[in-house]
Amino acid sequence: MTEFLDEARAILGEAHVLTTDLAAYVTDWRGKFTGQPLAVLRPADTAQVAATVRLCAAHGVPIVPQGGNTGMCGGATPDGSGAQVVLSLSRLNRVRSIDPLNNTLTVEAGCVLQAIQALAAEHDRLFPLSLGAEGSCQIGGNIATNAGGVQVLRYGNTRDLVLGLEVVLADGQVLNLLRALRKDNTGYDLKHLFIGSEGTLGIITAAVLKLFPAPHAQAVAFAAFKTPQQALQLLGLMRGQLGDRFTAFELMSQASVAMVRRYFPATPALFGTPHAWHVLMQASDASGQQALDAAFQAALEVALEQGIIDDVVVATSEAQAHELWAVRENISEAQQHDGSNIKHDIAVPVSGVPAFIDEVLPLLQAAYEGVRPIVYGHLGDGNLHFNVSRPAGWTTPGWQLETDRVNAIVLDVVARYQGSFSAEHGLGQLKNHEMLLYKAPLEVDVMRRVKQALDPQGLINPRKLLPD
Amino acid sequence: MTEFLDEARAILGEAHVLTTDLAAYVTDWRGKFTGQPLAVLRPADTAQVAATVRLCAAHGVPIVPQGGNTGMCGGATPDGSGAQVVLSLSRLNRVRSIDPLNNTLTVEAGCVLQAIQALAAEHDRLFPLSLGAEGSCQIGGNIATNAGGVQVLRYGNTRDLVLGLEVVLADGQVLNLLRALRKDNTGYDLKHLFIGSEGTLGIITAAVLKLFPAPHAQAVAFAAFKTPQQALQLLGLMRGQLGDRFTAFELMSQASVAMVRRYFPATPALFGTPHAWHVLMQASDASGQQALDAAFQAALEVALEQGIIDDVVVATSEAQAHELWAVRENISEAQQHDGSNIKHDIAVPVSGVPAFIDEVLPLLQAAYEGVRPIVYGHLGDGNLHFNVSRPAGWTTPGWQLETDRVNAIVLDVVARYQGSFSAEHGLGQLKNHEMLLYKAPLEVDVMRRVKQALDPQGLINPRKLLPD
Repeated sequence: MTEFLDEARAILGEAHVLTTDLAAYVTDWRGKFTGQPLAVLRPADTAQVAATVRLCAAHGVPIVPQGGNTGMCGGATPDGSGAQVVLSLSRLNRVRSIDPLNNTLTVEAGCVLQAIQALAAEHDRLFPLSLGAEGSCQIGGNIATNAGGVQVLRYGNTRDLVLGLEVVLADGQVLNLLRALRKDNTGYDLKHLFIGSEGTLGIITAAVLKLFPAPHAQAVAFAAFKTPQQALQLLGLMRGQLGDRFTAFELMSQASVAMVRRYFPATPALFGTPHAWHVLMQASDASGQQALDAAFQAALEVALEQGIIDDVVVATSEAQAHELWAVRENISEAQQHDGSNIKHDIAVPVSGVPAFIDEVLPLLQAAYEGVRPIVYGHLGDGNLHFNVSRPAGWTTPGWQLETDRVNAIVLDVVARYQGSFSAEHGLGQLKNHEMLLYKAPLEVDVMRRVKQALDPQGLINPRKLLPD
Repeated sequence: MTEFLDEARAILGEAHVLTTDLAAYVTDWRGKFTGQPLAVLRPADTAQVAATVRLCAAHGVPIVPQGGNTGMCGGATPDGSGAQVVLSLSRLNRVRSIDPLNNTLTVEAGCVLQAIQALAAEHDRLFPLSLGAEGSCQIGGNIATNAGGVQVLRYGNTRDLVLGLEVVLADGQVLNLLRALRKDNTGYDLKHLFIGSEGTLGIITAAVLKLFPAPHAQAVAFAAFKTPQQALQLLGLMRGQLGDRFTAFELMSQASVAMVRRYFPATPALFGTPHAWHVLMQASDASGQQALDAAFQAALEVALEQGIIDDVVVATSEAQAHELWAVRENISEAQQHDGSNIKHDIAVPVSGVPAFIDEVLPLLQAAYEGVRPIVYGHLGDGNLHFNVSRPAGWTTPGWQLETDRVNAIVLDVVARYQGSFSAEHGLGQLKNHEMLLYKAPLEVDVMRRVKQALDPQGLINPRKLLPD
């Protein structure tokens, strides 16, 4: 491999072929996987990515592409063989162009999401992808994993925000699909193959992103319910009244909110008495704050009159809107403090969420007395983060050993609802084997045929997404 | 082939294996192509489609799938060899389920678009796909060609309206991707491969469609300009003011409007003096007619004050809104009466439309004195129908012989703008060869690899979309 590394240094320069101090590249964000690569390669541009991939293909060296390394499923973490290279896209961080009249932005894969949001805002536009890791995740990784987040209800997943791609294929050829068009029916839409493929079909080096009119009016409220069924009714009512101006609808169980208040003591008590379920909701509009407020208030009054909501707090200032959003946003960190839990990121049809919850909670209680499910997520998309926290009396290692059994309880119900066992986090190396449990063999077979057609040597992120 | 036909009759019944009276199936809607099939096969359900495809695979019989036969590019028309079968999906016309709370509708491929729109409306929902052929086109064909239409600005193309698919593969296996989920990151998104593939990768038999809140408030106006640049400025202004409530923005040249008035004499003269360019625009909202009218009017007043529009008519009744829409909708039929023209369906970045028009019109005038370009289309999507009508003194056959030269003039400019030579109509057998002229060889090669992976025998709609 000395020859390989020498050739890599000739392409990238000494400083960008790392073989020591690799800690930042070899462990995933959740700390579940640690690998041992042959080297970390840091190309500067698309041409260097292409040359690096050609070199790897010639030497039979497997490549693990990596962006901000914020993935939830170990998709960007190398294995322990010492044979793989990590290909970091971080240095490809140029903005190639912005076209506000076309509502598009062309960026390289290593651009950090928050910087893209900020650039759009400078041009009075919105790039709507928004998620917890936005300060460090990179757009190439967002696209490769088809990231979700809190604005999918209105704007869709990352897939829906991409008009064009530049991709380095497994043989090092550069596939230029960087079109900035709203309509183009000239053959198979290849970009959708690469979006969400977790770097297993090619390496995304640049993208054309869709921008939207910036919202200058916003309304935020926090509502309380006895049941998720009420929350679902409210969703229908608000969408019916506000249409596309209704942009976020996040469900939180009482345990989720209580956990946030435990670890973030400054969190205000929003209601005098506890309620079993809550939603944080938001409406946005390009302009017209007064009209939006009036429509939002009117819809909430209908919901109160009809008994759909038991209580509600409407933000009266931007500061209070932030405070309400913080309850939702702090769940993930509170969960880290709260100790061992078995996480799920599932989706079912939106209409099935209440029945799904009613069905799965008693099964968990029956299997594990005192278990603490932390249920929250994007009800507007039917997507729940369904984290099962260790009951009192269990040790952390002991509880982690229950992972397969807890997964089976939750995911078998998901399957009965024709749901998804990974709604927005992807598969990586954490959930790829679930594909064999929950997908029809024919679907897996077609995926393998596509993989074979695009990466016949099997060198691009091997065994991620598709297990052997 | 007697044995093949006998087996087909055993699967489908005598009445649904047609070998005579095939006129309705063998010529495309525009009358440009006429084929001669071995037979027309009319399966009743997915199982019969699968059995038919298995039979064809066993006998090596090529299959041309067909829906409402309203395509613009001959994609559903068989060749003249007498060896292909037309597989009509018309009898697969059941609604499998509707779930208004999940905003989804599951239908079979043969359902007519207008019936789907009506069913959604019955449940106070919108299925936003809308196009000229909606009274007879079928949803399977809409999906297979990724149809566009007049509401793409807000709702996207057909691709964006599909959550799940059922597809019969080339070997007759049924791939069930009928998921009704807003988020699902469990492997490659195979449905996007089939959407827009024009029946060349598999046969779509059913789909889960996205529904939206029904718009109960609408505002419509017709504005006049000196230049397309002004129209583009107006688009930016209206989207900035109205955000997602701005739902349609259709450009029409003076020649397009004059042509409609010539063949539809009841069309009102909207303005006292002629203007070079017009747009028809629409805003919609779930509710709140007064608020929408106020915001729409306010935005138009800003546009008048800033000199962005030279004149404007706002519809004051639903009847007048229909009258304004009729001007746009009648262009296509007026064009039929007006005689020979060479059609293009192109897209460029929205911001590039004015410069594109300024560049291509003089080239056409220089090549053909007195040529009459009929320019209209979906400016909000950068998509123009750019039809080049025969100059005085040319015969229809003579003008049609100029097709390649006219295409080269228009499409070479499109290519310089990194545009699309077929924005919403697809390729079929009319435009498939342009792929070799205007696509990079690598992109075509990747498409061929995908085709090979899904249809190794090459029996599903051969030579459509991808030329030999």
